[in-house]
Amino acid sequence: MNEVVDVRLKVFGRKDLLGLQDLHPDEIRLILDTARSFREISERPIKKVPTLRGKTLVNLFYEPSTRTRTSFEIAAKRLSADIININVPQSSIVKGEGLKDTVKTIEAMEASIVVIRHGQAGVPHILAHMVKSSIINAGDGAHEHPTQGLIDMFTILEKKGSLEGLRIVIVGDILHSRVARSNIFGLTKMGAKVCVCGPPTLIPPKVEQLKVEVYYKLEEAIKDADVIMLLRMQLERQCPNLFPTLLEYTKLYGLNKERLRVASQDVLVMHPGPINRGIEITPDVADSHYSVICDQVRNGIAVRMTVLYLLSGNRGRL
Amino acid sequence: MNEVVDVRLKVFGRKDLLGLQDLHPDEIRLILDTARSFREISERPIKKVPTLRGKTLVNLFYEPSTRTRTSFEIAAKRLSADIININVPQSSIVKGEGLKDTVKTIEAMEASIVVIRHGQAGVPHILAHMVKSSIINAGDGAHEHPTQGLIDMFTILEKKGSLEGLRIVIVGDILHSRVARSNIFGLTKMGAKVCVCGPPTLIPPKVEQLKVEVYYKLEEAIKDADVIMLLRMQLERQCPNLFPTLLEYTKLYGLNKERLRVASQDVLVMHPGPINRGIEITPDVADSHYSVICDQVRNGIAVRMTVLYLLSGNRGRL
Amino acid sequence: MNEVVDVRLKVFGRKDLLGLQDLHPDEIRLILDTARSFREISERPIKKVPTLRGKTLVNLFYEPSTRTRTSFEIAAKRLSADIININVPQSSIVKGEGLKDTVKTIEAMEASIVVIRHGQAGVPHILAHMVKSSIINAGDGAHEHPTQGLIDMFTILEKKGSLEGLRIVIVGDILHSRVARSNIFGLTKMGAKVCVCGPPTLIPPKVEQLKVEVYYKLEEAIKDADVIMLLRMQLERQCPNLFPTLLEYTKLYGLNKERLRVASQDVLVMHPGPINRGIEITPDVADSHYSVICDQVRNGIAVRMTVLYLLSGNRGRL
Repeated sequence: MNEVVDVRLKVFGRKDLLGLQDLHPDEIRLILDTARSFREISERPIKKVPTLRGKTLVNLFYEPSTRTRTSFEIAAKRLSADIININVPQSSIVKGEGLKDTVKTIEAMEASIVVIRHGQAGVPHILAHMVKSSIINAGDGAHEHPTQGLIDMFTILEKKGSLEGLRIVIVGDILHSRVARSNIFGLTKMGAKVCVCGPPTLIPPKVEQLKVEVYYKLEEAIKDADVIMLLRMQLERQCPNLFPTLLEYTKLYGLNKERLRVASQDVLVMHPGPINRGIEITPDVADSHYSVICDQVRNGIAVRMTVLYLLSGNRGRL
Repeated sequence: MNEVVDVRLKVFGRKDLLGLQDLHPDEIRLILDTARSFREISERPIKKVPTLRGKTLVNLFYEPSTRTRTSFEIAAKRLSADIININVPQSSIVKGEGLKDTVKTIEAMEASIVVIRHGQAGVPHILAHMVKSSIINAGDGAHEHPTQGLIDMFTILEKKGSLEGLRIVIVGDILHSRVARSNIFGLTKMGAKVCVCGPPTLIPPKVEQLKVEVYYKLEEAIKDADVIMLLRMQLERQCPNLFPTLLEYTKLYGLNKERLRVASQDVLVMHPGPINRGIEITPDVADSHYSVICDQVRNGIAVRMTVLYLLSGNRGRL
Repeated sequence: MNEVVDVRLKVFGRKDLLGLQDLHPDEIRLILDTARSFREISERPIKKVPTLRGKTLVNLFYEPSTRTRTSFEIAAKRLSADIININVPQSSIVKGEGLKDTVKTIEAMEASIVVIRHGQAGVPHILAHMVKSSIINAGDGAHEHPTQGLIDMFTILEKKGSLEGLRIVIVGDILHSRVARSNIFGLTKMGAKVCVCGPPTLIPPKVEQLKVEVYYKLEEAIKDADVIMLLRMQLERQCPNLFPTLLEYTKLYGLNKERLRVASQDVLVMHPGPINRGIEITPDVADSHYSVICDQVRNGIAVRMTVLYLLSGNRGRL
């Protein structure tokens, strides 16, 4: 990617988007730069382009999701793709070979792109080897959620101009969070200083190996922070023996106006949603001018349009 | 709206459609007159117009619905909009702030129009203040269901030529019916004489203040009626202490051929659906030439296309 | 259909597709020949044609289905139709008149085509008489599933060039299988020799009257077979007193490489899906070069496009 060309357009050479851990910084840059053009399309009165006309995208969700599924659906519709939603109920989750046949079926239906969310880490990677369709990982267990990571990076970039050297603090249940992992992989590659903060039981062992600093006290972690990224406390996931009560969590790690004072004056407050107001964040902070939570949602469509566009073999802005 | 212009086209000046109680008779007339043009589109072999191309409509249903959701979906597709269906299961109904975040998310997804059904009266009004997207109330508790009211008025108008001076009798559970309320507001504004009839426990106290006459005996109510509008007995809603049994209801308030004789010779029989055949109406009446129940469904699409069209800032027929 | 015309195009004269039992061999031939053209469309980069633009197709499923519903949805989208999915939960299955009103409602919504799956045999036929919309039977009880039959016939034709004189063996629960019945009707009409094989309790009494040979031993049935069509063991359907255990079934009727040896050297192995790997078929056979299971899925879209196209009054290839 070092060649200098006039048009400065570059093909994203991959069939799939499985995680940010595998991506080269230049590939991340290509996506983020191309997303700027798609962000502009969203501001037009007619937000539709014919790029994926006649191509089929399948949303294959093994875990319930409204936001991510909807965001991909809107993105694909804006690119004029045909969308098929397949929600596999928790109760009928198929194992091993069943999954193989499901995906072979989807491929035989001539789906160009399969967006998959699955409770088990690694499933999208296995599928990617099996089929010719492009696979987008929309969340695999506690592993990765690459489009969310890209959205968060794009949102910071939009506000701060650069990721280089920023102090970015991720707060909450780091252990179970695929959003945290994708952000850690992506942000460190782009030169940000990433810190994680949460109760010791919710910090993955040896997380320092991912080049992050670990904090157990919120006040220390967010001191001079440029970005504070809060994670959703997922009551359904956390084992009760990992943390006493939500009240206790909020008392120690909930972000409020008072605590925010030690951060940088133009700190960004982020949250991948859905928010538990009053738990990981107080309403006044969620609705404050520090908060870019709605920007994250808005950028979600532009970033996902970009990923769909690039995986379909189109050239993006270098 | 008294100015005389050549083209006789008028903008519907509202962002939202929340209820018929708020609308001026001229606004109702604008919708009903414009709907005639959309009724014509439905008769073309290709029923599609590009009016809402590139705009996104979100169907946000907190109560299950097939008919209303489907009707809005078809209407929006005929206008070339992109449609996202979000069904929030009863079990996970969010409260207060959760709702706020859901709608902020939808707005951030750049939805032009949000069609919402919610079990609590007033929710669409609260949302309308919160977001820039147009909100259409598709039913809020026992409060209003304005598009259904407009559909019913359009259907009567189509058959009778005018609403002025018609004797229109609404029969059934008036207390819990948002369809009844929207019809009462709309029809009285347009000069019809509205009567309500049902068991005393299912008539709202002080309903006379809405300028309706109250009857407890079906035969007396429907004497010389131009229109009889039956409401669905919703077994899931009526508390058992409000009415003894369905058999008892049918005996007293079920419409059959025999009872229909006292009505006007060209009476219209209406029902918002779905029908409980043999309960509020006998099959022979439901399928008779008096019945305009299928017309109501058919007109539903034209009226909803009109509402979507006018809320998107287009000019309608005065 | 014996007239010789230059363009060799023919209208499919029916409003509905209810089963293969009613069709004339020339009608089946018209569908299969036309499907070849639609198979070609699927290989284009842009797989979309405007044939059904502005027409509405309703997928009305009274039994849960992902594959068939999705396949019709993709087919209809490729023809540019608007699609409405209505899934009626098992728990709220309506009876008699309720069904009538549902379909009258769908007709009033100006649906051109209704694709219906229902647990009771004959329901699509009743509806076809009631409404002007075209009805496609997507499975009615244990009766027929005509598009699956056509897909299977098309797949065999594609590989073998002709159906005439082929030895085709259907293995499994013939008694409860609508796929088996549609295939038996269609294949025998087209001159194939159809055999059925399964445990005696799962073979319908007097099935010989449908011009099929009956076998109870797999090895005998598949000797010299040109095609082996396996049926899914539907655990939810088979009464426990009809068959002891799945292990027992697999031991006697499961297809494996060893058993396959007695079949024709270029035998085709088929399955309508979803496969129970290790039960009716071993994975090595399912993934072998004999297997055309993915072709069946792929052809599903082309055949369903053809049926939608012909029912909409278009001329097909004779």
